[in-house]
Amino acid sequence: MGKAIGAKTWVIAEGYIPGESHGPEPQMTSHETVCLLNCSDKDAHVEITIYYKDREPVGPYRLTVSARRTRHVRFNDLHEPEIIPRDTDYSSVIRSDVPVVAQHTRLDSRQASNALLSTVAYPSAA
Amino acid sequence: MGKAIGAKTWVIAEGYIPGESHGPEPQMTSHETVCLLNCSDKDAHVEITIYYKDREPVGPYRLTVSARRTRHVRFNDLHEPEIIPRDTDYSSVIRSDVPVVAQHTRLDSRQASNALLSTVAYPSAA
Amino acid sequence: MGKAIGAKTWVIAEGYIPGESHGPEPQMTSHETVCLLNCSDKDAHVEITIYYKDREPVGPYRLTVSARRTRHVRFNDLHEPEIIPRDTDYSSVIRSDVPVVAQHTRLDSRQASNALLSTVAYPSAA
Amino acid sequence: MGKAIGAKTWVIAEGYIPGESHGPEPQMTSHETVCLLNCSDKDAHVEITIYYKDREPVGPYRLTVSARRTRHVRFNDLHEPEIIPRDTDYSSVIRSDVPVVAQHTRLDSRQASNALLSTVAYPSAA
Repeated sequence: MGKAIGAKTWVIAEGYIPGESHGPEPQMTSHETVCLLNCSDKDAHVEITIYYKDREPVGPYRLTVSARRTRHVRFNDLHEPEIIPRDTDYSSVIRSDVPVVAQHTRLDSRQASNALLSTVAYPSAA
Repeated sequence: MGKAIGAKTWVIAEGYIPGESHGPEPQMTSHETVCLLNCSDKDAHVEITIYYKDREPVGPYRLTVSARRTRHVRFNDLHEPEIIPRDTDYSSVIRSDVPVVAQHTRLDSRQASNALLSTVAYPSAA
Repeated sequence: MGKAIGAKTWVIAEGYIPGESHGPEPQMTSHETVCLLNCSDKDAHVEITIYYKDREPVGPYRLTVSARRTRHVRFNDLHEPEIIPRDTDYSSVIRSDVPVVAQHTRLDSRQASNALLSTVAYPSAA
Repeated sequence: MGKAIGAKTWVIAEGYIPGESHGPEPQMTSHETVCLLNCSDKDAHVEITIYYKDREPVGPYRLTVSARRTRHVRFNDLHEPEIIPRDTDYSSVIRSDVPVVAQHTRLDSRQASNALLSTVAYPSAA
C-alpha cells in the first residue's frame, strides 16, 4: 500500500454527454465519468483538457485525488473554466503529477432502460 | 498542449452496423463509431481499411483530423470508395501520419432501449 | 496491406453465455463472440482453450482465419471437442501462428432489450 | 498449457454496485465482477484492496484461483474483512503471487432491462 500505480497521462477519445435522461436523479442521469485511482501516498493534482471538433481545446479543469483515494468525476459536473455542452462530441486528456489509473464510463438513460459502456483509458508515456 | 499522444496504427477487430434502429435520428440510429483524438499541432491524415470475412479489404477511406481536434467518425457515414454494408461482420485498421488515440463505440438501437459498447482500440507499433 | 498486426496469444478472462434470449434468431440470440482480424498475407491457424472454474481446460478448438480476413467467432457455435455449456463461467486463451488482433463482445438478450459489452482482449507475449 | 500468462498487479478504477435490481436472482442481480484466469500450474493467491473516496483502503480480501482455473468473483460477495457498501464509488487493486489476467464486468439491472459493461483491467508491473 502506498506505492504509485499507473501513468501520468491518460486519453479518453470518446466523449458525449446525452442531453436527455430517464429515471431518478442523480444516479440515473445520463453521464460520462472518469474514475481515477491514486494508490500512492501523495495527493495527485490532476488537470483535464477537453478537445472539440470545431474549436480550440478548453482547460485545464483542475481537481485533486487525495492519497490512497478514488475519485469518480462526472464530466457533467465540470464547470470551471466552462461547462461541457450536452449532445456534443469531445475527447479528454488527463494529466496528473503522480501516477494514477483512469477508467471511462458512460451511463446513457435517454431511453427507458439505461445503457452502459466502460473502458480503461489510454495510458501514455508522453 | 500540442504534443502528439498515441499511436499511428490502430485496430478495431469488432465491426457490425445493425440494420435496424428505434428512436429519433440521427442520435439513436444504430451506429459504429471510431473516436479519434489528435492532440498534436499538425493535421492528421487518416486512412481506414475495412476487412471482411469473405472478400478482399476495401479502402482506404480518407479523412483528416485537424490539429488539436477530436473527430467522431461513424462507419455508417463512410461512402468513398463504397458504403459499408449493414448486418455484416467487418474489422478496421486505422493508420495516421501523426500519432492519435482511437476509441471504438457502438450504439445498438434494434430493440426499444438502446445498448452501448466501447473499448480503446488496439494500438500497434506496426 | 499484408503486414501482420497484433499478437499470437490473447486472453479473455470473462466468459458466460446466457441460456435465455429474446428477439429474432440468430442476430438477437444471447452470445459471446471473439472477433479476430488477420491483416497478414498468411492464413492464421488458431487454437482456443476454454478454462472452467471446477474442471480441467478443454480444447483446443481449431479454426482458421484466412489471410486479409476477419472472422467473428461465436463461442455458442464451438462444438468440437465439446459444446460450451450455457449459464457457466469460463475464460478463453486464443493462440495463433501469425499475429492477429482479438476483441471480445457479448450480446445479452435475456431481457426485452439487449445489452452489449466489448473490450479488446489481453495480448500476451507468452 | 500450464504456462503463466498475465500480470501480478491489476487495477479496476471503476467500482459501483447498484443497490437495486430487477429480474431473477442471482443471475440478474446488479453486480460487479472481476474475472480472473490462472493459466499456470500453480495456485494463485490473490489479495484485493478496496479504495474509497473518503476513507482509508480496506483489505486485503483473500481468495485463491486454482491452477488452470478461472474464477469470476462478485464484489457483492466479498465480506471479510467487511462488506462493500452498495451505491458507493470504489476502486480495486488486485495482487496475485502468480501472473493472472483480470477482466471487469458490471451488470446493472436497476431498470427493466439490464445493462452491461466490461473492460480488461489495467495491468501494472508495479
